[in-house]
Amino acid sequence: MKIDLRSDTVTKPTEEMLRAMAEAEVGDDVYREDPTVNRLEAIAAEILGKEAALFVTSGTQGNQVAVLTHCVNGDEVIAEADSHIFYYEGGAMSALAGVQTRTLVGERGALRAEEVERAIRGNNIHFPRTKLICLENTHNRAGGAVISVEQMKNVYDIAQKHGVPVHLDGARLFNAAVALGVAVSELSVYADTVQICLSKGLSAPVGSILAGERAFIEEARWWRKKLGGGLRQAGYLAAPGIIALTQMTDRLAEDHERAQQLAKGLRQLSLQVEQVETNIVLVNTDSIGQTAVAFLERLEEKGVLAVDFDEYVIRFTTHRHISDQHIKTVVEAVEELLVTV
Amino acid sequence: MKIDLRSDTVTKPTEEMLRAMAEAEVGDDVYREDPTVNRLEAIAAEILGKEAALFVTSGTQGNQVAVLTHCVNGDEVIAEADSHIFYYEGGAMSALAGVQTRTLVGERGALRAEEVERAIRGNNIHFPRTKLICLENTHNRAGGAVISVEQMKNVYDIAQKHGVPVHLDGARLFNAAVALGVAVSELSVYADTVQICLSKGLSAPVGSILAGERAFIEEARWWRKKLGGGLRQAGYLAAPGIIALTQMTDRLAEDHERAQQLAKGLRQLSLQVEQVETNIVLVNTDSIGQTAVAFLERLEEKGVLAVDFDEYVIRFTTHRHISDQHIKTVVEAVEELLVTV
Amino acid sequence: MKIDLRSDTVTKPTEEMLRAMAEAEVGDDVYREDPTVNRLEAIAAEILGKEAALFVTSGTQGNQVAVLTHCVNGDEVIAEADSHIFYYEGGAMSALAGVQTRTLVGERGALRAEEVERAIRGNNIHFPRTKLICLENTHNRAGGAVISVEQMKNVYDIAQKHGVPVHLDGARLFNAAVALGVAVSELSVYADTVQICLSKGLSAPVGSILAGERAFIEEARWWRKKLGGGLRQAGYLAAPGIIALTQMTDRLAEDHERAQQLAKGLRQLSLQVEQVETNIVLVNTDSIGQTAVAFLERLEEKGVLAVDFDEYVIRFTTHRHISDQHIKTVVEAVEELLVTV
Amino acid sequence: MKIDLRSDTVTKPTEEMLRAMAEAEVGDDVYREDPTVNRLEAIAAEILGKEAALFVTSGTQGNQVAVLTHCVNGDEVIAEADSHIFYYEGGAMSALAGVQTRTLVGERGALRAEEVERAIRGNNIHFPRTKLICLENTHNRAGGAVISVEQMKNVYDIAQKHGVPVHLDGARLFNAAVALGVAVSELSVYADTVQICLSKGLSAPVGSILAGERAFIEEARWWRKKLGGGLRQAGYLAAPGIIALTQMTDRLAEDHERAQQLAKGLRQLSLQVEQVETNIVLVNTDSIGQTAVAFLERLEEKGVLAVDFDEYVIRFTTHRHISDQHIKTVVEAVEELLVTV
Repeated sequence: MKIDLRSDTVTKPTEEMLRAMAEAEVGDDVYREDPTVNRLEAIAAEILGKEAALFVTSGTQGNQVAVLTHCVNGDEVIAEADSHIFYYEGGAMSALAGVQTRTLVGERGALRAEEVERAIRGNNIHFPRTKLICLENTHNRAGGAVISVEQMKNVYDIAQKHGVPVHLDGARLFNAAVALGVAVSELSVYADTVQICLSKGLSAPVGSILAGERAFIEEARWWRKKLGGGLRQAGYLAAPGIIALTQMTDRLAEDHERAQQLAKGLRQLSLQVEQVETNIVLVNTDSIGQTAVAFLERLEEKGVLAVDFDEYVIRFTTHRHISDQHIKTVVEAVEELLVTV
Repeated sequence: MKIDLRSDTVTKPTEEMLRAMAEAEVGDDVYREDPTVNRLEAIAAEILGKEAALFVTSGTQGNQVAVLTHCVNGDEVIAEADSHIFYYEGGAMSALAGVQTRTLVGERGALRAEEVERAIRGNNIHFPRTKLICLENTHNRAGGAVISVEQMKNVYDIAQKHGVPVHLDGARLFNAAVALGVAVSELSVYADTVQICLSKGLSAPVGSILAGERAFIEEARWWRKKLGGGLRQAGYLAAPGIIALTQMTDRLAEDHERAQQLAKGLRQLSLQVEQVETNIVLVNTDSIGQTAVAFLERLEEKGVLAVDFDEYVIRFTTHRHISDQHIKTVVEAVEELLVTV
Repeated sequence: MKIDLRSDTVTKPTEEMLRAMAEAEVGDDVYREDPTVNRLEAIAAEILGKEAALFVTSGTQGNQVAVLTHCVNGDEVIAEADSHIFYYEGGAMSALAGVQTRTLVGERGALRAEEVERAIRGNNIHFPRTKLICLENTHNRAGGAVISVEQMKNVYDIAQKHGVPVHLDGARLFNAAVALGVAVSELSVYADTVQICLSKGLSAPVGSILAGERAFIEEARWWRKKLGGGLRQAGYLAAPGIIALTQMTDRLAEDHERAQQLAKGLRQLSLQVEQVETNIVLVNTDSIGQTAVAFLERLEEKGVLAVDFDEYVIRFTTHRHISDQHIKTVVEAVEELLVTV
Repeated sequence: MKIDLRSDTVTKPTEEMLRAMAEAEVGDDVYREDPTVNRLEAIAAEILGKEAALFVTSGTQGNQVAVLTHCVNGDEVIAEADSHIFYYEGGAMSALAGVQTRTLVGERGALRAEEVERAIRGNNIHFPRTKLICLENTHNRAGGAVISVEQMKNVYDIAQKHGVPVHLDGARLFNAAVALGVAVSELSVYADTVQICLSKGLSAPVGSILAGERAFIEEARWWRKKLGGGLRQAGYLAAPGIIALTQMTDRLAEDHERAQQLAKGLRQLSLQVEQVETNIVLVNTDSIGQTAVAFLERLEEKGVLAVDFDEYVIRFTTHRHISDQHIKTVVEAVEELLVTV
């Protein structure tokens, strides 16, 4: 059995989640008659401080439905250059919604409010219209970086000033909230719509939530249907989702703690490790003269899995199935490899 | 508890399905490591006589991924004027794939091969290029009508002649196969790609399959990802799907039998009922001087649910939760209403 | 020199048009400083009874800009099954605007108001939203058929009732007006937006007009720009356009007269000729056992050009360069061919 | 009469161009029978060293047709962050073609080959596919900056290595060629397709050229048609275009010389002026404590027109209608304004 640090998406549901799934009361959610889905959506809306919420099958689907609902073809979206919605969603914003993305290079994933303001388009026939600003918290490619409440607020204030809505890709928003010691609603308040994942660190098997104003969510249902995200007895997925939201968020602190242990261990091996704020550890392989892919192949032989994030960057992600002992084993495995480079 | 004849999508999983779900071995399907999903896809490909298959979250998603994979923006698709893919999928073919649909009015849902041939575009700069022909079997809006093997073959031969692929929306393909007394593969052989639903009559809670050549399915994965259909521990949905495919198909004959009973009962009340071939019964309310919606409201008061299909057409759909007794009760309820019209 | 009845688009500008072109006062129209373009747009708006007008480079561009401005991706448009906007514009409505087209088979090109009403979508998450109804007058593929004022009004009334705008493809609207003996504004009043061609029978070298409410036309400028239709010194094209609009419309009666002569001559040869209402003559080649393409090849050897409209249908189009003598020559040429079939 | 330095697009045709227009032999270009258009396309292809060329109505249309022909929906294009195709074309790449743009910040408009290489996407289901790299030479927003032959070649080599085509937005390619003292073909050889403008400095009233391999241009015709760029007697625009291409390119050196004069004059007023390489002069108004818009308003009162390029950046563009005397007058006008700031 390998130690799998590729992603927190590999987490499997808890026993309690499995029980909830087996006992779930379900109905046809296209008719909006699945009581478990309805309950999940109500709970999620409440936790996120929004009027309404919608169950979607993935973070990508939540993000794309948000873009499709906020924008029409020909509009422009502002997003961080390394944001998941731009970098990892197959160009779907342009492919599906026909919107152009104006990317800004953030500071550890955080958009600077003044740069956002400059990027909002004026009224000129040569320009698309800026219709959405996307934030991501925590920011995956910035190494699980946390966007602070103040950074969120600064961008939101600018957005409000210009009448442009903000969408928050909060696939790992609970990690940010735990790291900052605030409620998620203290972050989501600075966004008009927010997407959070129930899988990843929260360990539900499948699913995400898109939340916002009621009228927005009603419209979002139409786009979710077009994407084929209208499910039937979705309660079987919603049931573990409820547990994810209500019982699994605090334990993320443990993942963060282990990420710190891992970073510390790797730094002691003289590896260059990015600042760690949550459950993601980015390690640069440049100094050891090996590409990420090459190093990962050897690491896999030692029973450790992680992913390449750039030609010379490896990402390790901690999660519920990673113990203190695993971290020690990983550090030892890396040490052995370094000796033999 | 109402008698729910709105759709076979309201079916809930069997006990065995629930057990399979609880015991499913799962993994991260985005990494293609969910053994249950992999098994479902292998079984589905085999049953449908195709090289490969892909689990998707709905029939709509399977159809749209097929269109997105077969076509590029600017192409044209030929489909029946009342087909689900054109009529009930929110205009997604155009919205997502940028393709235009050339609709032909079929004969009880069946496209006529010679009309298909005439509709295939010639090489003219004023035209889009015909890149796909869509069939639907059974055909929902034609009242669960079965497209015969010969009708399928005729269209496929024309399509082959012109080098245009055929996609089969087989959301209820097993109903067609059971009605015709053939294996589904004897129908799907006349299509390059096929989508079948695991929910509906087969009773799985969520999910559909898209099958075709291996290279096509590999490409389809990319589009499924863009739509947000890449799931994590999807094995919990695949497990009941396997049972749906392997154990639930023969029982559709019972649904068909009950649809016949219902049709017979309603005809005895002098109602105009369309020809019934599978599990769908279309009833015209014109003769009783009431719109479908008005009649349905009164029917609901009697504890019976169905859906309006047109201003004066009601659709009843039989499924696993509908018994002989239910059918009797429904006919009696209608009879009472007719007395009081 | 061949007698060219392929299309009225082959017409060359008059001497007066050439003079106007040479003397045109121009400016940069992207800055809206071309006085001749501005004058053309003002004149066109007035003639069409609309607040504002926009010069575009073709009928296709006018139609597509209209669709892009009326609709957003995911919407549905109702159009006649053989309408130019659906049949001959390369699927652009779907390719560019992401809208689905619901086609209805008209009666000699005229949509039936009651069928339009039935095709307008209700509020159902499975449906796209109906956002536009397209009419075409005269209707090209129906053989230059004229849609009557009453037919226009009937559809418009239904459209108004449901809050759906109407776009009129009036590429040959002046032909309709002349045939009906009404002002074009008596037809365009039953449409929210209208496109007319300055080329075709009116003989300007290039260009069309899109007209509608001022706010609509302002928005249409943005889409015209995206399509690359924002020109610089466009006054050179607008100048002959002004003459087309103000001096060339009455003469269309001559083209209609010659089309009647041609139809009469061909009917005397026992050919099956569709009803002729304007400048288009459709002839069926079925009875002579030759495809349109085969017959046209032989006709070209006799010095006569026309186009195939369907496998067994030829279209002849009269225009300013076609004289009475030409018509006689054409009929004689056809006669000779029939003898030798 | 104001001194108009807003853009070289305001240039009006020469007397010879007007004569050529009046005498042009024309035909219906949709049927490809306009001899003047055909001649222009042949000449342009030859000059650009490509197999074939296509007349389009604007640089935007040429660029967008190129993108639509190179890519399909869901692909990704690499372009400079301030490139015209991304910044000034209304988001059309995404709106029309459904492609996402990966922007890189260049060095005075020039993409760095190594950054391009890093931006080309690997084979990963989370990614769009990189299908096009766009260059712009001269680069408008970089202040008419010239991309050197070597810079072009470096990017092209990388592109070739990865099998990704290069499109060159050469709206002002002749300015680059003149500045570098090379033939345009020495630049266009490092691109698979190239767009050049006949208007702008070359003074034709309307039109651009898209050139590339024959098969590509054939396909591009289909997309031009969908955009409504298929014109009828386009020879009236092609005739001055031929003169633009064959007689007007050398004189661009005069525009460059006057831009240098202007830059020198403004620098002597202690204004911060960007490096000038061709006919564009960017001036920073930061130091004088006024926004570009505010300064331009006052400048207009002095009879001088230019455009704001950023909040504190003004662009002056020299062209055929700007004389040495005009430059002096402009510098004097600015001087007067600076005194009274």
